[in-house]
Amino acid sequence: MDFIFSNKISSLQPSAIREILKATSIPGIIPLAAGNPAPEAFPVDEVREITKQILENQPIDALQYGVSEGYQPLRNTISTWMKSKENIGKDFDNVIIMSGATQVMDLATKVLCNEGDTVICEEPSFIGSLNTFRSYGCRLVGVPVEADGMDVSLLEKALKENPNTKFIYTIPNFQNPSGATMSLEKRKRIYALAKEYGVVILEDNPYGDLRVAGESLPTIKSIDDEGIVIYAGSFSKILSPGMRVAYCIAHKDIIAKMTVGKQATDVHTPCLNQMVVYQWFKQYDVEAHIKKIQGIYRKKLELMCDCIDKELGDFVTYVRPEGGLFVWCKLPDDVNMLEFVQRAIDKKVAVVPGNAFLVDDTKQTQYIRLNFSTPTDDGIINGVRALGQVAKEYKK
Amino acid sequence: MDFIFSNKISSLQPSAIREILKATSIPGIIPLAAGNPAPEAFPVDEVREITKQILENQPIDALQYGVSEGYQPLRNTISTWMKSKENIGKDFDNVIIMSGATQVMDLATKVLCNEGDTVICEEPSFIGSLNTFRSYGCRLVGVPVEADGMDVSLLEKALKENPNTKFIYTIPNFQNPSGATMSLEKRKRIYALAKEYGVVILEDNPYGDLRVAGESLPTIKSIDDEGIVIYAGSFSKILSPGMRVAYCIAHKDIIAKMTVGKQATDVHTPCLNQMVVYQWFKQYDVEAHIKKIQGIYRKKLELMCDCIDKELGDFVTYVRPEGGLFVWCKLPDDVNMLEFVQRAIDKKVAVVPGNAFLVDDTKQTQYIRLNFSTPTDDGIINGVRALGQVAKEYKK
Repeated sequence: MDFIFSNKISSLQPSAIREILKATSIPGIIPLAAGNPAPEAFPVDEVREITKQILENQPIDALQYGVSEGYQPLRNTISTWMKSKENIGKDFDNVIIMSGATQVMDLATKVLCNEGDTVICEEPSFIGSLNTFRSYGCRLVGVPVEADGMDVSLLEKALKENPNTKFIYTIPNFQNPSGATMSLEKRKRIYALAKEYGVVILEDNPYGDLRVAGESLPTIKSIDDEGIVIYAGSFSKILSPGMRVAYCIAHKDIIAKMTVGKQATDVHTPCLNQMVVYQWFKQYDVEAHIKKIQGIYRKKLELMCDCIDKELGDFVTYVRPEGGLFVWCKLPDDVNMLEFVQRAIDKKVAVVPGNAFLVDDTKQTQYIRLNFSTPTDDGIINGVRALGQVAKEYKK
Repeated sequence: MDFIFSNKISSLQPSAIREILKATSIPGIIPLAAGNPAPEAFPVDEVREITKQILENQPIDALQYGVSEGYQPLRNTISTWMKSKENIGKDFDNVIIMSGATQVMDLATKVLCNEGDTVICEEPSFIGSLNTFRSYGCRLVGVPVEADGMDVSLLEKALKENPNTKFIYTIPNFQNPSGATMSLEKRKRIYALAKEYGVVILEDNPYGDLRVAGESLPTIKSIDDEGIVIYAGSFSKILSPGMRVAYCIAHKDIIAKMTVGKQATDVHTPCLNQMVVYQWFKQYDVEAHIKKIQGIYRKKLELMCDCIDKELGDFVTYVRPEGGLFVWCKLPDDVNMLEFVQRAIDKKVAVVPGNAFLVDDTKQTQYIRLNFSTPTDDGIINGVRALGQVAKEYKK
């Protein structure tokens, strides 16, 4: 039988890029294309001890159905933590536990967008979120990212030209893939524009705690007096991505609709997983853990930048990120980027071709994304060295 | 700010029924309205031991990102198990791990339906699935359930009248809420009709292993030579609902699209949770466990039916189910069903008013749904006795 699929899913066609991305799972390849947290950053002993306690003391709570809003003690913990740490959470806000931050994007889109509605996003932006928006039949409008975040005048132009815009999607800290961090000035201007045009901001902050240099900036949500910012936080990068526990803080009217949506999509996030996160906060010093993993990522980021400077210094240009997991490198204008990526794969190094992160991924770009959290230190050294060898081929 | 929500989510309004359902969480109420598995049916010791092993031997596999299709050893285990147990799985089929069976309904709808497309369902049917279909803007067309399953001639009429039908949703075993099990004859006729009209069947089998009387019947998927049946299986009722692990077996073209959808909704089901299920199969006798919990549910079902016969025998009528979790009781025609339910709540017993399970829940019905898995034995005895007292008020 030839199945007829929905328009929204049919638009998510496998692309040439995905074929290249498949190469990232070739055995023995150096994974500079991935985005996995460093395994040495997982608090394995703590999770083991906590899980044991929960299954000894509260096994039925862990195994029985839970509620769609999430495990109440964890919701309380997150409220308190985000209030003290980020000044997030007004009287009109509420918190819901999600099965990973992608579910925040999923339910925000489901709740706010009809098919054909516009989502304004940074360009380049995280391919996973772009696909989530596409999977609801949304139209994407990209606004270029500068070194200090979204181009605000082009954002205003996009808002003017697209009156059916429902929300602006942004990753203000160590944006994926550009690594750019949005300045405080721009955070305020974007918030003011959202207010003016009556649209919501979807603020995705998965990497905020992975700052390895510079000063923390206030989240957009912290200046949200109107309840128009949906904030997505995650434990994937500071605790474990495999656990699939994240959270959303937003106006209670939005959370109420997202709860209805969550009930209809996966009922609730697994109880044991939520209880592990709660007990982790209760029994351990989460901020000390975050400091520790910042040390891990600082070392890896510095190693990668040093390697790039040494092996690719006269070939690529990049802005050194202050955190996150990625370095966004621009190849010389006369180099065919996709061919470069293919040559890297031939040398057993996987990187992501930059057009994967574009609204229209058939468009041309000179960028590639390198990840430093997944590979070992040797992987970083050997991987970037191999890229340097590919670069030499172009200099002949 | 007054938010404007999407049409599909706005249609999921809180209803009068939900207000009544809220009563089910009143402290001290006897929960005959719930649908939780009996806690004594959870293999707590096994889960505790397995989890400990996994976090000792494979902590990074448990905590790192996984793939959207699911943990490969578990996918293999399910393929083998379903082939030997249910004769499910042709060459064209594939399996994907889901975060609970609701996600199968969610992604099947997302993949197959545009807004306004028709889903044909049994009526009454599981409110959770109906809401999932509604959350994609689908039109629901109900086909009455008889004691041996869907009314086939009315199904054919519905297929004729609704050419934009994308799938037929059915729970063939111990249907929720009616308790009805579809005869083999009807399974074959419904499959033939689906083939004739070029629609898919979404076969939801959460209760199949909870058979306490009679003979097992073949699943519709087992007679699927064309690859038009999407089969949803779950570990919620035999292992743990709080773990949120389920699976879908369907034609590989459908699974490929569902995988793209899953990537965009929650990336993957938590790794630890999948590994627990895999190790449970590897290290324990799952079929023996199923036999054991069938004993638990047989006792509770018999107790509830005995109590109904004793306390409500001359008031309600019902067909004794051969399994599942529910007894579907019809009140006398001259009784106001919603008032009866409210009076039960006043006596601290929660039951579900039958119209919750209708396509149009403002329609009238004389049915209520009683659950025997959540309450203790005393809860069953005292709960049904209280319902008997409410009934007496009507007989005065």
